Amino acid sequence: MAEEAAVTAAVLVIGDEILSGRTKDKNIGYIADYLGQIGIDLREVRIVPDVDDDIVAALNALRHRYGYVFTTGGIGPTHDDITADAVAKAFGVPISEDPRALALLLERIKPEDLNAARRRMARIPQGGELVENKISKAPGFMIGNVIVMAGVPSIMQAMLDGVTPRLKTGAKMLVETVEAGNLPEGLYAADLADIAERHNGVSIGSYPAFVDGRFRNSIVLRSKDEAVLARAVAETRAMIERLSRERKSA
Amino acid sequence: MAEEAAVTAAVLVIGDEILSGRTKDKNIGYIADYLGQIGIDLREVRIVPDVDDDIVAALNALRHRYGYVFTTGGIGPTHDDITADAVAKAFGVPISEDPRALALLLERIKPEDLNAARRRMARIPQGGELVENKISKAPGFMIGNVIVMAGVPSIMQAMLDGVTPRLKTGAKMLVETVEAGNLPEGLYAADLADIAERHNGVSIGSYPAFVDGRFRNSIVLRSKDEAVLARAVAETRAMIERLSRERKSA
Repeated sequence: MAEEAAVTAAVLVIGDEILSGRTKDKNIGYIADYLGQIGIDLREVRIVPDVDDDIVAALNALRHRYGYVFTTGGIGPTHDDITADAVAKAFGVPISEDPRALALLLERIKPEDLNAARRRMARIPQGGELVENKISKAPGFMIGNVIVMAGVPSIMQAMLDGVTPRLKTGAKMLVETVEAGNLPEGLYAADLADIAERHNGVSIGSYPAFVDGRFRNSIVLRSKDEAVLARAVAETRAMIERLSRERKSA
Repeated sequence: MAEEAAVTAAVLVIGDEILSGRTKDKNIGYIADYLGQIGIDLREVRIVPDVDDDIVAALNALRHRYGYVFTTGGIGPTHDDITADAVAKAFGVPISEDPRALALLLERIKPEDLNAARRRMARIPQGGELVENKISKAPGFMIGNVIVMAGVPSIMQAMLDGVTPRLKTGAKMLVETVEAGNLPEGLYAADLADIAERHNGVSIGSYPAFVDGRFRNSIVLRSKDEAVLARAVAETRAMIERLSRERKSA
């Protein structure tokens, strides 16, 4: 594997509706999968309410720490849509109506229907580049390393597709799963720790699920180095097979 | 409404598997609903990887800011289960095998099967009180204002039920929804902002969903004050009806 610097990212979900439980977030899992597939490592997620100070603080913490920050939510026409203003504040830049964004809105909205509320969706912080989407025409934007997207999943997904060609990506994380079935975690934990210890650059997790009154365990191995990953997977598989045999014959 | 201080909370989800997209989180939405129903306001959520420093930093940021912090994940027997140690580190207290936790494990595990990995699940930071669950016997714990729970949803849910009687709760948030149907957000945004402005203590959000190629909008009003909420709901409903009539006759 060529040595390549990891490209990292965080997701910032903005919205009272997620914190109140009214809306169940569908974007985090989608973005996590998506970034993994294009070679960007998702390292942190935060969910904050529609409160200016909270958005600014989270954004500034995340954008200085990670390669990219993807935000979702709060870019519509109503009074609770304050994301664009909060982003401008975080970057310390002015925000104003962007003629390119206005032109996009006018592809969908008649000039006589473009009231003040709708014009708010054309306000973009200075230095922001539009991120278009075909569904609503109201654009997201990218400023510095921050990508500002809608909260509605289908629109967010279109924006993610739209911005991807502009993103720097790194080596993809390779993932392999070894099913441990109903072999208890407690029986393989010591051997698995030993395998993890001896394979640098492979991150190994054990994940129990409780299905129909029984545990079923999966071991997930992740690495950007194919050869080391293959060795760790082979050892893990052999270890699970050995312990399963011993258990049956006990 | 009697004036009552709000009881606030944050959720800290711990786990590489959520950030990699392999596992789709099911706990955040559940906890959000649950806390709303018992009168605790969820104000922030963070998802961090299985990295000691990241867990400690997030936990210390959240536990000083909110009334409670609920963590999920990382309390099993394998090497990637480091939550209990990170919590001890965050609180600056030692961690050791807890006889009560060991006794619980022995209800399910034969003494000769209680190996070192399984005994790890009985390690509790000094000062922690156990949070039991009937499904796995391996307990979570509460230390200070931090409640440490499993990541497996059914076990997490049992622990949440187990700890609730010990929690301070506040006034419940009352929630009403006014359906705006296919009336565009841009048409009611100004009137809605005006209603929000005139009803202190009512938080109003407008939430578009994109279903079968069309937007459908819902307006959600939330308050702990029943009378003010009822007035804001009545005004919102009347406003949506008026705009819908005007639109049809236009």
